[in-house]
Amino acid sequence: MSAADLIAHYRKLKAQAATSLTNDAVSQTLIDMALEALDFLVAEANVVPLTSRVAGKTYRAYRIGERISRPINEASFIADPDGLTKAVKSFSAAKLKAMPASDATRLIYTMGMAFYAALDVLKDDDKKTPATHFEILAARIFAMLFAVQPTYAIPLQASAGAVADELPTDYIFDLGTGKPKIHMPVKASTRERVIQVWAHQRILDGAYGHGTYKGVLVALNETKLDRQRLIVTEICVPLQWRVYQKYIAQMDRVYYLDPPAAYLALAPAITVKPFCELFSDLSHFQG
Amino acid sequence: MSAADLIAHYRKLKAQAATSLTNDAVSQTLIDMALEALDFLVAEANVVPLTSRVAGKTYRAYRIGERISRPINEASFIADPDGLTKAVKSFSAAKLKAMPASDATRLIYTMGMAFYAALDVLKDDDKKTPATHFEILAARIFAMLFAVQPTYAIPLQASAGAVADELPTDYIFDLGTGKPKIHMPVKASTRERVIQVWAHQRILDGAYGHGTYKGVLVALNETKLDRQRLIVTEICVPLQWRVYQKYIAQMDRVYYLDPPAAYLALAPAITVKPFCELFSDLSHFQG
Repeated sequence: MSAADLIAHYRKLKAQAATSLTNDAVSQTLIDMALEALDFLVAEANVVPLTSRVAGKTYRAYRIGERISRPINEASFIADPDGLTKAVKSFSAAKLKAMPASDATRLIYTMGMAFYAALDVLKDDDKKTPATHFEILAARIFAMLFAVQPTYAIPLQASAGAVADELPTDYIFDLGTGKPKIHMPVKASTRERVIQVWAHQRILDGAYGHGTYKGVLVALNETKLDRQRLIVTEICVPLQWRVYQKYIAQMDRVYYLDPPAAYLALAPAITVKPFCELFSDLSHFQG
Repeated sequence: MSAADLIAHYRKLKAQAATSLTNDAVSQTLIDMALEALDFLVAEANVVPLTSRVAGKTYRAYRIGERISRPINEASFIADPDGLTKAVKSFSAAKLKAMPASDATRLIYTMGMAFYAALDVLKDDDKKTPATHFEILAARIFAMLFAVQPTYAIPLQASAGAVADELPTDYIFDLGTGKPKIHMPVKASTRERVIQVWAHQRILDGAYGHGTYKGVLVALNETKLDRQRLIVTEICVPLQWRVYQKYIAQMDRVYYLDPPAAYLALAPAITVKPFCELFSDLSHFQG
């Protein structure tokens, strides 16, 4: 496999997702990408054990030549291609809701990380492709669970008498009359721009009233790899998050695939949870 | 002159600014940098006329070999080294307040643009150095005018009983007891991250009460150069700004060195002004 093969898959995924996130073809492409990426890593790359400075977690990376992948949480990664081939059969709304939460975490985390690791060892410094793939993976899961196609903008009237305009946003899922809508930003990691998430939630609360849009941030991880010393750390700013939540707007939930303990500890001020708990939280959103 | 010479000046400026923005040595370094940069451009670079798609404004660039500078507004630029040598003698609080506004604009705009253009033709894709230089230039002018050293963080208590923490911010100028404080973000251009400006203002309003901190955004320009076709455009999103101002927080002023008409037209919803009007607005802040 080459970087071009991976990018060809990614282009197909983007085109499918742009047409409809409720189409099962999106799931099939996500599955194909994960399986091919993991096969490639096992066949062509070396496993590099990393020194973890993250309490309670161990990480590995893959390496080809000078290129080393991002860190992968060992406990949440299905490193064996046969295991992943079996696991992906459960990538459907009904099965994700029914299966043990830890299995759901491993399946979804691996479907993301196998592709990102393969891309990391095939291509230099591509941040946009993994970020967009992760957005599609997360949005596909929401679209499956709620059977709703998201939109990407909200109508807003900036001033009395002004022409109505649209504010571009992250994903918006409208669950139907009388139910809350979901405002779902997705971030591979939240460094740098996360204040925008709270600011957009503030605009939604101001324009439509508190509770009309529930803010649900979905994030992958906050790991950082020192590529020279092969040390993994987590970069978190929990006090800044507390300030955003207190003064800008209230996010309803934050779901992490590899949740940092520093953010999990923000509850009850901010409800930060492992991603798999989404599957037992559905009545919270549909109620 | 080489890129290394310019960067050496810049390092000196950064060190001086980190020590004290009220020190006149900062002005002298800013002046030295502008004069040397303009001498260099006149001696070594070619002037490239640009096609302007910005109504009422004409732009030039400088070029050495394959490297072309950012666009420079002809009407606001002192292109003649003798002219700039005379003009910089007015770079003091007393003289800036007393001189015609158009002369003040030309002086300050040229002190920024000469350096950025020289850097552009000497070095590839350095965005951080011009952005930081522009922050120091703007902050030095505020520090001169108000005779106040700014700070870069505000104390905040994120939750009852929690340890007080600091929120890193842009410049904060405390004008003294009973007077408003100035929250001054500085942006070379506002693309991408400007929502952060309103979000920080919201935190200040929430934590300290409306009116305690006056939000003053200082920006250079919103120009974009098509380097193949040599066409200058301005990229503006006035409807998004209206939404931020209505729903997130209220910025007190926005000052532009090269103000886009689309943002000037936001008044009275948002008071956007040419930078030089700052010099006649001082009583608004000191009142």
